[in-house]
Amino acid sequence: MQPLTTILVDLFVLFAAARLGGLLASRLGQPAVIGELLAGVVIGPQALGLIGNPGGGMLEAFHGDAAAAAHALELTHETVAELGVVVLLFTVGLETRASDILRVGARAGLVGVLGIVMPFAGGFTLMAATGHPRLESGFVATALVATSVGITARVLQDLGLLRQREARIILGAAVIDDVLGLVLLAVISSTAESGASAAAIVLIAAQAIGFVLFVAWAGSHATRRYSWQVRQVFRIEEPLGLALAVMLGLAALAGLLGLAGIIGAFLGGMGLAESRDREQLERTIRPIATFLVPFFFAVTGSRVSLDALRDPGIVALALAVTVVAVAGKLAGAALAMAGTRWWSALFVGVGMVPRGEVGLIVAGIGRNLGIIPADIFSVVVLMSVVTTLLVPPWLAALHRFAPRSGAAAAVSRDVNDDLDVPIDADAAALEGRR
Amino acid sequence: MQPLTTILVDLFVLFAAARLGGLLASRLGQPAVIGELLAGVVIGPQALGLIGNPGGGMLEAFHGDAAAAAHALELTHETVAELGVVVLLFTVGLETRASDILRVGARAGLVGVLGIVMPFAGGFTLMAATGHPRLESGFVATALVATSVGITARVLQDLGLLRQREARIILGAAVIDDVLGLVLLAVISSTAESGASAAAIVLIAAQAIGFVLFVAWAGSHATRRYSWQVRQVFRIEEPLGLALAVMLGLAALAGLLGLAGIIGAFLGGMGLAESRDREQLERTIRPIATFLVPFFFAVTGSRVSLDALRDPGIVALALAVTVVAVAGKLAGAALAMAGTRWWSALFVGVGMVPRGEVGLIVAGIGRNLGIIPADIFSVVVLMSVVTTLLVPPWLAALHRFAPRSGAAAAVSRDVNDDLDVPIDADAAALEGRR
Repeated sequence: MQPLTTILVDLFVLFAAARLGGLLASRLGQPAVIGELLAGVVIGPQALGLIGNPGGGMLEAFHGDAAAAAHALELTHETVAELGVVVLLFTVGLETRASDILRVGARAGLVGVLGIVMPFAGGFTLMAATGHPRLESGFVATALVATSVGITARVLQDLGLLRQREARIILGAAVIDDVLGLVLLAVISSTAESGASAAAIVLIAAQAIGFVLFVAWAGSHATRRYSWQVRQVFRIEEPLGLALAVMLGLAALAGLLGLAGIIGAFLGGMGLAESRDREQLERTIRPIATFLVPFFFAVTGSRVSLDALRDPGIVALALAVTVVAVAGKLAGAALAMAGTRWWSALFVGVGMVPRGEVGLIVAGIGRNLGIIPADIFSVVVLMSVVTTLLVPPWLAALHRFAPRSGAAAAVSRDVNDDLDVPIDADAAALEGRR
Repeated sequence: MQPLTTILVDLFVLFAAARLGGLLASRLGQPAVIGELLAGVVIGPQALGLIGNPGGGMLEAFHGDAAAAAHALELTHETVAELGVVVLLFTVGLETRASDILRVGARAGLVGVLGIVMPFAGGFTLMAATGHPRLESGFVATALVATSVGITARVLQDLGLLRQREARIILGAAVIDDVLGLVLLAVISSTAESGASAAAIVLIAAQAIGFVLFVAWAGSHATRRYSWQVRQVFRIEEPLGLALAVMLGLAALAGLLGLAGIIGAFLGGMGLAESRDREQLERTIRPIATFLVPFFFAVTGSRVSLDALRDPGIVALALAVTVVAVAGKLAGAALAMAGTRWWSALFVGVGMVPRGEVGLIVAGIGRNLGIIPADIFSVVVLMSVVTTLLVPPWLAALHRFAPRSGAAAAVSRDVNDDLDVPIDADAAALEGRR
């Protein structure tokens, strides 16, 4: 079998399973993303093993090195998955205005900072208390920090909640969260390697913050003022091609600065939300999302590995770490959202829970530095899996107990944007439900 | 740098370069695809080397094996490129009705068969006459056989000629060509390995022919009758997701049967062209093509390697083989199109010239079997590169000298579908131009 045939078969299985799973989940009244994730788990190597098996052609291309061939095949899945999540966050950005995020900026900043501090403190304490070395505990705590906002963003989109105040707080907090997580990773890595100086860490932080501020602020202004002129000068008829180039470019640039690619894509979408072409872009990007986004969730599901479940000690530690990971984000959001209704605080907190691939990257760096042993790496993997799979049904259930129905909330969008006014204008009338 | 960042940067460079090249080519009055191909050549490893350089993260993932890491990175490019060409041929299929192809079926069949016989005979004779062993000559001749229709299909789309009779003949012939090429490859491989029996070859041929006939014929009928019901029963609101699953599934199935994935995608699109959702599908697939198709051409361009150009003997043989490859297709089309105007025969012949990746796959199999030495492999690579780069400008130039202007031809589409009536109803009036 030619390598491209192996890849095409895998992509078909991933897409078809994701669509089918999404369809079933929708039928059961759940967000489609739950079905897409579970479909990935079912076809993944741990269950049916329908994907990720390099054929003869791939083995030959890697001179019979089965591990390398399997890893290369996995990378092709991840490439399409990454395109999917980049497109997803770009569409979410297109539905978000920088001014909306700025209006909840203080609150989002607080959620971001406390959502870093609480899981880090909890994780470090737990690991140190169970006798793990200080540096190892620091790495695990850092892996508990950064939210992977793709899962939450998709649930919010599925439920039609992207314009809610809570959604904006989550998105704003996720950007801040990613920047702070990067700085924390730089600090902890430099502690481990004693290579990076304080100056280097300041530089990393300055680059990341500079990127976010520049893209979010100047990007929006430039888009509003010049994007039309650029298209006129270069006689570009369709805005889509240029927008996609901007999306990929900012995602790549974010990656080069050590941030998650999706942060760049989100900020790029938010910038282009100010352009005259916003509606056309939203309409034309939707089919691309239909094609590519399911790959992200199916591939994420397919990477769920439950090998570590065989060791009860590891399972116990993983459960404890997971509880800390979840409770840390919830506590951070509860503190940061003090003064708003409990439902909003809980919704934002749950929205920040998924760790996805970000925690795995941190743990992987720790493993490569020889600081995190294999069993502790499995602990982080389990934490990442559980927090990822937990959030879609949890948010959907919370949505059902929302102070007002989703439809009503959608109508009231763009109305309640002040920092401390609860999401529904007449929310006071509903306070009895608490 | 994380592996996904390396991949994102490469994808951004490929996409941005392709769009820019396409824009420049359009400005110069050429099909955009020429600019996309040349942009790929410019950024490729042979020129600027902007892509295909695995970063530290990828090297680490492959335990420092630079060759494996580079090959894996290449595979991720090819994955996105393959999605692009699959989507391209699917859109071409959507613009084609099976009945249109059947109406030119006899002619297309003749073009397909003679377009196989002539280059094979010419290639075998040339190689044998220059003293190469019989089996090696047979493999090179087989590599000259199969048309890679992606390039031509895109040029036809760019020029708005897909509904022309010549375009239908090319598309129909490309399908037949691919099936026959597969059978020929099976024959020549079995001669080399003496493993595969005649029965196995018959099975391969029967599977391939059965697939094409089943998908083209039953597929269209099932789509016309049942696709609406399927969507009703499963309550699928948007036809796009189902259509994309069909596209990927048929591409993968074609690959499993040894055919090119794009043949499956083309037949799938042709089947869905009969559905009630055809117009909606055409509209929603277009943004997906905008995103993914440029990758195919940029990646194709980036793979152009000119290392072999250093050996004058190889260059001379490559030129001779290329001339045979081009002349074989032109002669085949001229014979098959006897009785139509010379312009139509030439246009169809040129449309069948690109060999692209298909020739490389055949030559690669020959190399892996130890039959084709490295220098002869380079000859096939050069032939493939030249035939691929030659065709877009050639077809565009031919289009300019068309018996009638493109706009007029587009108006007369769907009118002149009888086998032997020239493309323009009033063509007789223009015969003086010959």
